[in-house]
Amino acid sequence: MSSVLPPVPSARTLWFTGLSGAGKTTLAQGLLARLHELGRPALVLDGDQMRQGLNRDLGFAREDRKENARRLAEVAKLLNAAGVTAIVAIISPYAEDRAMARQIVGVPFTEVHLDASIQVCAARDVKGLYARAMAGDLPGFTGVSAPYEPPSQPDLVLHTGGDSIEACVAKLADFLGL
Amino acid sequence: MSSVLPPVPSARTLWFTGLSGAGKTTLAQGLLARLHELGRPALVLDGDQMRQGLNRDLGFAREDRKENARRLAEVAKLLNAAGVTAIVAIISPYAEDRAMARQIVGVPFTEVHLDASIQVCAARDVKGLYARAMAGDLPGFTGVSAPYEPPSQPDLVLHTGGDSIEACVAKLADFLGL
Repeated sequence: MSSVLPPVPSARTLWFTGLSGAGKTTLAQGLLARLHELGRPALVLDGDQMRQGLNRDLGFAREDRKENARRLAEVAKLLNAAGVTAIVAIISPYAEDRAMARQIVGVPFTEVHLDASIQVCAARDVKGLYARAMAGDLPGFTGVSAPYEPPSQPDLVLHTGGDSIEACVAKLADFLGL
Repeated sequence: MSSVLPPVPSARTLWFTGLSGAGKTTLAQGLLARLHELGRPALVLDGDQMRQGLNRDLGFAREDRKENARRLAEVAKLLNAAGVTAIVAIISPYAEDRAMARQIVGVPFTEVHLDASIQVCAARDVKGLYARAMAGDLPGFTGVSAPYEPPSQPDLVLHTGGDSIEACVAKLADFLGL
């Protein structure tokens, strides 16, 4: 019995980092749709969603955020091994954790910074979290009561504060050679 | 932009449970090869291997075993969502944990009992673990110093103590309609 691996068309991990409200989930779903149109197996690992499943035992303390990122990196690696592109959408505010993720996943790992200012994200406030955080109701909320360390050398920057979703997805598609 | 999902040929989760030495890893790899020959995306989630990655923070205490099973079930579910068949090879000695896994994954979930006696597994002792456990060196070793609860209603039973690997893979392939 010979083992013939199925064709794996450049499975990779895209790691979307940015503030709450920067558009991580929206862009991840937009890119997912584009990949599916092309018949490419892909899956979104959304931070919020994962906290209801794999990471349901984790909170927002420093060590929990690290463990959150670690597990998603390990799962992304497994998906890649199965030929599935992983789109990880997670605030991941600490440079150290993103470096760890890159090391766990191996190549190709693409760090994408969704660069929208705190002002823009707070003004959107889709989930009403910024209002609560600014009222002192959410300790450890990234950008308000906890730090966000912007990537110093991201593989790609998307200006989600100004550019449209379509423009950002197009830039991603271009970057990926789709 | 319309979202067209790629074809997902009956992705499912196969949960291999059995004593250490019952042949979980070997059979998982055998089935994986068969699936790959057919061009079916599949991945093995091997308990031992996962303990070097996703589950590296877990030990063998009761709660750790439960968490081990929980995480692999969550990952299997994600793989299934991406169209990838997950073959989970993990002792999973507790019926409660396997029931939890079934609930997390949803259908189709196939519990496969690799039924080899403790005598056969201990005689094989590929990793030398039974000798150590019987010498009192490994507390909490399944079948020796910790319980194994055989499935009461497994979806499939493979008699890995007597039947050949080839026969067991053939039985699996038949069960799956491959």
